[in-house]
Amino acid sequence: MDLWHWLFGRPLKFSQSQQEEITTSEGLAALSLDALSSVAYGPEAIATVLITAGAGALPLLMPITWAIVGLLAILVISYAQVIEAYPNGGGAYVVSRENLGEGASRLAAAALVVDYVLTVAVSIAAGIAAFTAAFPPLVPYTVPLCLALLALITYLNLRGVGESARAFLLPALIFIFGLGWVIVRGAVQVVAHPLRFAAPPIEAHTVGVLLILRAFAAGCSALTGVEAIANGVPLFREPRVVRARNTEWLLGFILGGMLVGLSYLMVHYHLRPQPDTTMLSQVAIFAVGRSWLFYVVSLATTAVLGLAANTSFGGLPLLASILARNHELPHLFAIRGDRLVYQYGIAWLAVASALLLTASRGNTFAMIPLYAIGVFTGFTLSQSGMVVHWVRHRPRHWVWKAGVNGLGAVLTGIATLVFVFTKFLEGAWLVVVTIPTLIWIFYRVRRYYHRVGILLGVGQPPPVLHIPSAVRVIVPFSALTRVTVRALEQALAMSHDVVALTVLFEPGADQMERQLQETWAAWAPPARLVVLRSQYHSVVRPILRFVESLEHLGGQRVVVLIPEVIPTRFGQAWLHNQIAMNLLTALRRRADVVVGIVPMHLDPD
Amino acid sequence: MDLWHWLFGRPLKFSQSQQEEITTSEGLAALSLDALSSVAYGPEAIATVLITAGAGALPLLMPITWAIVGLLAILVISYAQVIEAYPNGGGAYVVSRENLGEGASRLAAAALVVDYVLTVAVSIAAGIAAFTAAFPPLVPYTVPLCLALLALITYLNLRGVGESARAFLLPALIFIFGLGWVIVRGAVQVVAHPLRFAAPPIEAHTVGVLLILRAFAAGCSALTGVEAIANGVPLFREPRVVRARNTEWLLGFILGGMLVGLSYLMVHYHLRPQPDTTMLSQVAIFAVGRSWLFYVVSLATTAVLGLAANTSFGGLPLLASILARNHELPHLFAIRGDRLVYQYGIAWLAVASALLLTASRGNTFAMIPLYAIGVFTGFTLSQSGMVVHWVRHRPRHWVWKAGVNGLGAVLTGIATLVFVFTKFLEGAWLVVVTIPTLIWIFYRVRRYYHRVGILLGVGQPPPVLHIPSAVRVIVPFSALTRVTVRALEQALAMSHDVVALTVLFEPGADQMERQLQETWAAWAPPARLVVLRSQYHSVVRPILRFVESLEHLGGQRVVVLIPEVIPTRFGQAWLHNQIAMNLLTALRRRADVVVGIVPMHLDPD
Repeated sequence: MDLWHWLFGRPLKFSQSQQEEITTSEGLAALSLDALSSVAYGPEAIATVLITAGAGALPLLMPITWAIVGLLAILVISYAQVIEAYPNGGGAYVVSRENLGEGASRLAAAALVVDYVLTVAVSIAAGIAAFTAAFPPLVPYTVPLCLALLALITYLNLRGVGESARAFLLPALIFIFGLGWVIVRGAVQVVAHPLRFAAPPIEAHTVGVLLILRAFAAGCSALTGVEAIANGVPLFREPRVVRARNTEWLLGFILGGMLVGLSYLMVHYHLRPQPDTTMLSQVAIFAVGRSWLFYVVSLATTAVLGLAANTSFGGLPLLASILARNHELPHLFAIRGDRLVYQYGIAWLAVASALLLTASRGNTFAMIPLYAIGVFTGFTLSQSGMVVHWVRHRPRHWVWKAGVNGLGAVLTGIATLVFVFTKFLEGAWLVVVTIPTLIWIFYRVRRYYHRVGILLGVGQPPPVLHIPSAVRVIVPFSALTRVTVRALEQALAMSHDVVALTVLFEPGADQMERQLQETWAAWAPPARLVVLRSQYHSVVRPILRFVESLEHLGGQRVVVLIPEVIPTRFGQAWLHNQIAMNLLTALRRRADVVVGIVPMHLDPD
Repeated sequence: MDLWHWLFGRPLKFSQSQQEEITTSEGLAALSLDALSSVAYGPEAIATVLITAGAGALPLLMPITWAIVGLLAILVISYAQVIEAYPNGGGAYVVSRENLGEGASRLAAAALVVDYVLTVAVSIAAGIAAFTAAFPPLVPYTVPLCLALLALITYLNLRGVGESARAFLLPALIFIFGLGWVIVRGAVQVVAHPLRFAAPPIEAHTVGVLLILRAFAAGCSALTGVEAIANGVPLFREPRVVRARNTEWLLGFILGGMLVGLSYLMVHYHLRPQPDTTMLSQVAIFAVGRSWLFYVVSLATTAVLGLAANTSFGGLPLLASILARNHELPHLFAIRGDRLVYQYGIAWLAVASALLLTASRGNTFAMIPLYAIGVFTGFTLSQSGMVVHWVRHRPRHWVWKAGVNGLGAVLTGIATLVFVFTKFLEGAWLVVVTIPTLIWIFYRVRRYYHRVGILLGVGQPPPVLHIPSAVRVIVPFSALTRVTVRALEQALAMSHDVVALTVLFEPGADQMERQLQETWAAWAPPARLVVLRSQYHSVVRPILRFVESLEHLGGQRVVVLIPEVIPTRFGQAWLHNQIAMNLLTALRRRADVVVGIVPMHLDPD
């Protein structure tokens, strides 16, 4: 087993790919941590907007949270319907493509790509921020810590998503049960000691509709990630629809419960946003004190926030592979590696989010304003698509189903517009620029493949063969050693028209040519010797020029066979100059000839 | 003109290479700045040792400097003799090789390589240290500044040494004349006002012989670089021997004068080493005050110290090319690029000194103890070699000439031993480890090329040709498009035994195979279709296995022709997967077959 296989695992057969599929609870860890972990910043985001109108506005946290949970319920029902209707995954992209046409599907795809990258960057930044808040001496190392966590997640995903789901299951369960216990414990305290938590006297303030809208928009950042399960249905073990739907319901209940519970406690504890700590952390301290449970919940929050990034590593490579198969992204993204993962999508996502993390210097709040737009665009498109779907297919209860999705479409559409207008200057403009750029790329890639397909005759019956009557073979060489002789033998087996070609430099070219001609005459092989002189210190250029001059005479019947010594040990490659491969690369790029290597494997030890 | 040529200059013809040769004064700038700039730390190094015995020992600076200047005189005379006897350069290496045998020449080469790398690192570090001493806010950026200066020098050298010599001429002249003026002005002051510079009363101390030896050894760091001109004779314009010898004499006079002058002023000004400044800087302040001349001299010192690194960029690539032609280093080092410079040697030197600068964090004094050993080993070997040379050839005055070189050999040999013993724990051990390692590498490389030469029959008449009667051609493909058809046409022009080979994956392989067989039957080309199934997600592995199975049947008569679509625009390469080149690389490394590309150039726009 070599280093590569030790690092990334042995190649997997297709028959082993079952191993890489996930169960309901693993699905919660692999695809839902984005949504679940957003409780760590969602309610605080609402409170941050409300506090601008004074402490008297803070009790509005509760009704706004209920509105968001209502939207969550509609989304969960809606995505359960999507999972059933589209068991091959793709979420907003596939739904829009089938029901709303190409334009809408490209918009959905672009929005999702932006969202996946932001999910990785925001989650990792928030996770490391929570961690460094607990261990302040590490604050100066925020960016390296972010990149290290990103590298770890990338590595686990390159080994295969099944293994990563399992690795993330334990912290997810600790987070859910730990935070659940904090909420229950806190609620019992509030109910048992109503006087202790009586509201202090505060002044009343007028709260405008715009402020409530902005608070609602900010809180919607807690809903990002709800669509991930519908995108990732094919990752589930059979019966995959049932498992995926159960995971979606489970996510809805846990997320809704946490949001309501946390907002309830925040309102009754009279908490407000503070620098250097989080409101989630304040809730935990009120409920359980600075006990071991507080530290467990804090660390689990850090872990789960960081690992939420994994949601995107489950989703983006799959979406990119669907786009690639549809010729809207380079075909590379559809290639699965030895471990049956889409390695190019994983690598691209890692690079893009590393750039974002570095550019924002690991600051969560610099990225959050960009975040919800992509997701809510996807929500709107997929709900609208589902309405069209139900109207077209008309199954039982289709009116009710279309109604649910229609309500979702209207609400999420309004929310998207609210985000764009309320967050434009805070960074949303970047998303507004990026999404059309991505759409343009999809369009150009598609057009390129379409034209290449026509030029190559894809889908056409193969054309009549025009076999050239013979080939002329050219063997470039530097000295008449055994490797050259071998290449000449191969050339003479293919053709009776063989040219041995060498390039001489000044000084001493005359004498070298005389010697070579003498040796050649004495040896007398059935091939012609051509000696070129070069003014420059390059063999590639004169050979290329010679080959191009032949090309124009005889069409495509020229074959260049390059002799190459290949040492059997890897390290010895440095001892041979790389002329053969340089020449091959230059000829293949620039000349219309067949170009080949005649390797001679040597083990001098 | 593309970016590459804009950055590195247009390719040069051999006939243009005259341009790249240097005159006497350019030679002083290109090959002697190492030696000249060492006046900035040489006298201070002596004083630093003497001060450990108290201020009373400092007047010994003068006699020790005279001893070093005496050694310098012997070295200069000796190297002028070397230049005359060996006009093709190579210095210690060539001299030892011709007169003392292979073992000694390898020792000389290893010592020189170590010395060249240290010269670059020490000079750049010292130059940047002088610069940051003048501009203290830049101190935290020492390492990046060192690397930036290194990158600049590397770039100039990749464009060609002639241009760099010209770029360095001006600072070299400012340094020489500026420092010369400081010394003359200072000396006039001392002579004119003897009372002002009367010695303050200091206690007498006993000074041991070992201390004097150590002070002498430290001061010899001022002599490093004296050999560079003899190594670089071929860089000079004709008459090159005369020009090189004149440059050597000029270097000797300037360096000797500066050393004596600076030591004289240091003793008469009663200076001693101080933190945060240099003794050279103290001398300049005493002589000319904090005038504009002081700043000019300081900046020129910085520039010249930094540019001293260029001495090695003149020397090491040339030495490496001589070693490569002698098969003791990879042949790559003998390849000249478009600008007729040994680009691999330049690149290697840049990387090695960047590592040293980073590891030492740009600290000059961490590297100085390693520095003189390599040079003085070279001095000793080249002097000893010259003694043998004179004894063998016996020209006129050979006894006198052999005497000069013999004296030099004994003195520098003693000095080398003094360095090793007095500086071992300060870092000399690193050199003592590196030199034998390099010798071992030379030996192994030589042995490798020797064995490869035997296997390839280098120098033998070419063997009798054994031409195979026919070849079997295999064309791997993924779809029956025009690019595949073209490759089949080429294959059929070479052979009547053509196999079209494809690999299918689950799921859906059965149906795809049925369709393909039908198309093939309808098309009916004069070739055989072979369909492989893969359990894994790789096409390379099954094709390699298939080719290897044929190899064992028919010897070397198998040719693999890989169809490849090549877009005419560079950026479009990403839209095609790199399977063709991956397959070619795998087959050429691991299979004993001819492997070629059938390119199809496409411009879909």
